[in-house]
Amino acid sequence: MPDFSVPTPDTAGSDTAGSDTAGSSPLRVAVTGAGGRMGAAAVDAIDGAPDLELVAALGRGDALEEIVRARADVLVDLTVPDSTEEIVHFAVRNGIHAVVGTTGWDESRLAALRDALAGAPGIGVLIAPNFAVGSVLATAFAAKAARFFESVEIIELHHPDKVDAPSGTAARTAALVAEARRAAGTAPSPDATHTGAPGARGADVDGVRVHSVRLRGLVAHQEVLFGSAGETLTIRHDSLDRASFMPGVLLGIRSVPAAPGLTHGLDAFLGLDKA
Amino acid sequence: MPDFSVPTPDTAGSDTAGSDTAGSSPLRVAVTGAGGRMGAAAVDAIDGAPDLELVAALGRGDALEEIVRARADVLVDLTVPDSTEEIVHFAVRNGIHAVVGTTGWDESRLAALRDALAGAPGIGVLIAPNFAVGSVLATAFAAKAARFFESVEIIELHHPDKVDAPSGTAARTAALVAEARRAAGTAPSPDATHTGAPGARGADVDGVRVHSVRLRGLVAHQEVLFGSAGETLTIRHDSLDRASFMPGVLLGIRSVPAAPGLTHGLDAFLGLDKA
Amino acid sequence: MPDFSVPTPDTAGSDTAGSDTAGSSPLRVAVTGAGGRMGAAAVDAIDGAPDLELVAALGRGDALEEIVRARADVLVDLTVPDSTEEIVHFAVRNGIHAVVGTTGWDESRLAALRDALAGAPGIGVLIAPNFAVGSVLATAFAAKAARFFESVEIIELHHPDKVDAPSGTAARTAALVAEARRAAGTAPSPDATHTGAPGARGADVDGVRVHSVRLRGLVAHQEVLFGSAGETLTIRHDSLDRASFMPGVLLGIRSVPAAPGLTHGLDAFLGLDKA
Amino acid sequence: MPDFSVPTPDTAGSDTAGSDTAGSSPLRVAVTGAGGRMGAAAVDAIDGAPDLELVAALGRGDALEEIVRARADVLVDLTVPDSTEEIVHFAVRNGIHAVVGTTGWDESRLAALRDALAGAPGIGVLIAPNFAVGSVLATAFAAKAARFFESVEIIELHHPDKVDAPSGTAARTAALVAEARRAAGTAPSPDATHTGAPGARGADVDGVRVHSVRLRGLVAHQEVLFGSAGETLTIRHDSLDRASFMPGVLLGIRSVPAAPGLTHGLDAFLGLDKA
Repeated sequence: MPDFSVPTPDTAGSDTAGSDTAGSSPLRVAVTGAGGRMGAAAVDAIDGAPDLELVAALGRGDALEEIVRARADVLVDLTVPDSTEEIVHFAVRNGIHAVVGTTGWDESRLAALRDALAGAPGIGVLIAPNFAVGSVLATAFAAKAARFFESVEIIELHHPDKVDAPSGTAARTAALVAEARRAAGTAPSPDATHTGAPGARGADVDGVRVHSVRLRGLVAHQEVLFGSAGETLTIRHDSLDRASFMPGVLLGIRSVPAAPGLTHGLDAFLGLDKA
Repeated sequence: MPDFSVPTPDTAGSDTAGSDTAGSSPLRVAVTGAGGRMGAAAVDAIDGAPDLELVAALGRGDALEEIVRARADVLVDLTVPDSTEEIVHFAVRNGIHAVVGTTGWDESRLAALRDALAGAPGIGVLIAPNFAVGSVLATAFAAKAARFFESVEIIELHHPDKVDAPSGTAARTAALVAEARRAAGTAPSPDATHTGAPGARGADVDGVRVHSVRLRGLVAHQEVLFGSAGETLTIRHDSLDRASFMPGVLLGIRSVPAAPGLTHGLDAFLGLDKA
Repeated sequence: MPDFSVPTPDTAGSDTAGSDTAGSSPLRVAVTGAGGRMGAAAVDAIDGAPDLELVAALGRGDALEEIVRARADVLVDLTVPDSTEEIVHFAVRNGIHAVVGTTGWDESRLAALRDALAGAPGIGVLIAPNFAVGSVLATAFAAKAARFFESVEIIELHHPDKVDAPSGTAARTAALVAEARRAAGTAPSPDATHTGAPGARGADVDGVRVHSVRLRGLVAHQEVLFGSAGETLTIRHDSLDRASFMPGVLLGIRSVPAAPGLTHGLDAFLGLDKA
Repeated sequence: MPDFSVPTPDTAGSDTAGSDTAGSSPLRVAVTGAGGRMGAAAVDAIDGAPDLELVAALGRGDALEEIVRARADVLVDLTVPDSTEEIVHFAVRNGIHAVVGTTGWDESRLAALRDALAGAPGIGVLIAPNFAVGSVLATAFAAKAARFFESVEIIELHHPDKVDAPSGTAARTAALVAEARRAAGTAPSPDATHTGAPGARGADVDGVRVHSVRLRGLVAHQEVLFGSAGETLTIRHDSLDRASFMPGVLLGIRSVPAAPGLTHGLDAFLGLDKA
């Protein structure tokens, strides 16, 4: 029978990114949205990291001033779209770096935040729509590979309770792949289909075909398939557990103090463009 | 660099199904359609099998009487839909078993053939829409698994020059899976999707979602995905070369003399229902 | 970001196998080992099945007589190797069918149980080393496919806290595949390797190469790969959660009253050998 | 039956990498080793590229002076280890760039070539152990991802006539992954195995476990699996045909005139380190 023994997802891997702060005093970290599932997981991950010190964990109704009183170096915001903007501006005004996993940061909010940061030299904010390092890498690699292949398609596979198709990650990946191919002048993927059942060839997202599988037993998975004559390249990401976000949260916390201004997307901290 | 050395697809595996005729005199085999690609491959495969003797290889315009003169035990017909019916009836009338890979055998043709076989006791005909043993097994296993899982979807992947989507094999697999689920009273696969891009969820074939990927570098591939809470089962078949049909052709030749009447589908000769 | 919303593994799929007892009175079911993780999950699954009634749930120290007092039709034993033999014999003596998921049933124990069942006409016992329907199907399909391909290898992939390699399931699958190939006279899988690093070609289990991957983020997975010239067939099973065992437990409970004597392995109840 | 129609691997994709020389006069290209399989394929690919002109194709015994007489801008050398060094030095002396796919360039040969290039300003030589763009990308991505995951293993799968295990590509990938992890201070992949069959856990290549599958029906395939708590990333490359090398050969020809000195590995021309 399959062996499910000794699963230790909560601590494993939380220090993947290593740390160069050994010997120095720990970074002081506050969390807002600590009562949510992501927030609670972040609190645990920060608690378990020797180079970080959790100095405040705020839930709904707690006063933001607590973050200042606790002398936090970095704020991790995992609240809701309605409150995130106020919270992040509060941090910036008070000279506290921020790592933000809350959604809802549209272009106008980002522009206002850039303005605020212009008046707060040395302060960094990371807005990360996705903290799963593997997922961020998969998307970045797909964008880099896009221009080298004749064909590209995306298959994303999720549990059947998901209400949207394709997934947001697949739509973003398709957009980035499409943009890279346009920039390189790559021709559209060839497709001789002229008879078929409606939907067989998937959704057309910016010229890239995306197929959405919904299956009980799955969690969240994505494959980007590239092909040229005689070869294919497949980049697959499988997410099984919220634990997969924590290495990314910790990497954000450790990196943001050295990245003044606004950073959009965790990939900026993954050093992908170094040789 | 990938190693392409010493590929020997033509001889390899041609005796996979073994033979129990060792010691007895070889079966005498004739081929019609020997000038086509499938026919030529069949001629080579029969030539290479120690328990079979190729006694006639007919191309376009050759007289069917040659099959009788050559005292063939089994005829392999790999011609075209226009001529296959006449050829197979000719064989049956002359007491020659037949293995038929030509398409175009609809219900009325099959009925007429059953009538003819009723008057030819001991003679067997195999009509096989698919000689790839792996593909036939994959479809048979999918049908058997169908009723045990909450969800099922199919992904088929082919080269981009294919003109139809989904593939015929995928449509047949979906129909068999759907039939098995109906017979067992299995509920439809769950699907909470209510916002999405058109086509993202694939084609609906008899209640089963089928996704068709077209990618340069691929040949012919199919995955049937089953899922229930906590587990998934995937049955994948990859076809790279016409060589994959030959073990099935040989198995048909060896099996048909012992199977009087009409057999539809190679799976009947795979012994799948034995314990 | 990957979407983990609304996962409902506990109830989903628990009735996959359907039920033909609608209208009749529910089967009365008792569970021993109800305090363990498998036992607790079984109690929940039985509670959630409309055609079953949970009449007793015994933990360590509870008296077996409670099963008789509760007038159980079927006992589900999920205890430990030290106690399972006594418990099952007690059930048989008292005219109660049994579904047994506890390990430790070697040949001598099985022989003694067969003797006991010979004196208890009409009583059925299922000893099931594996309740994951997908895993049992995967193994059964692999055994059926084994003789049709030139090559076969197995890859099993688990979390890195697993202490044995290869997994028990992979070893069993290899043994069944090897047995089927021997029975059919299939030649050994070809392998021209003559220079290499030790271990590269995996473990030799009864002539079948088995590769064991250990990777954080995985749970329990297995692929059986078959290949002949021009085609491959892959049968993959992924286990993510103990929930995957429950449909098999329920299927066992519903099937065992109609299967007097000893049944070894859930596959006997999957109807795989029907056309 | 699987559909093998209209496969056109020879021309497809040969211009994947695009060209910015439109309007200018074509690059003049010579090929040595034109009589071999790779050489013949390269001749065809160059012939089919509108921005390149094939001006000489030399086989065994042809005089190298022909390359000079033909006023080649770039030489593509696809000969054998015994002759490649002399040929490439001849090209450098005569002011001709070179793209070299022949093996056998060890450190001492590379050093001598660097010396020669120091005296030939403006001349570029690319030594490429692998021209399959997908394979080169897969290895480069694996090296970039290596430091972000707790676990990494490699599975390579080839036809059973291959004599070495693991493959050269897998060994190189393992070495690059190991180097990246050492540089980042990543801990070894966790592994609790303490009982097992010899070989089950694969070969240890520089601390990375590598598993070699040999299966009839396969060609040349590789998977690099990365895992951390709750997620896995898989980078898979499939090679089916020598045609897959041609886009890389063309990219090398187009890129080498702008890259004076010695370039080792096609990845240098893939622009992977640009944002």
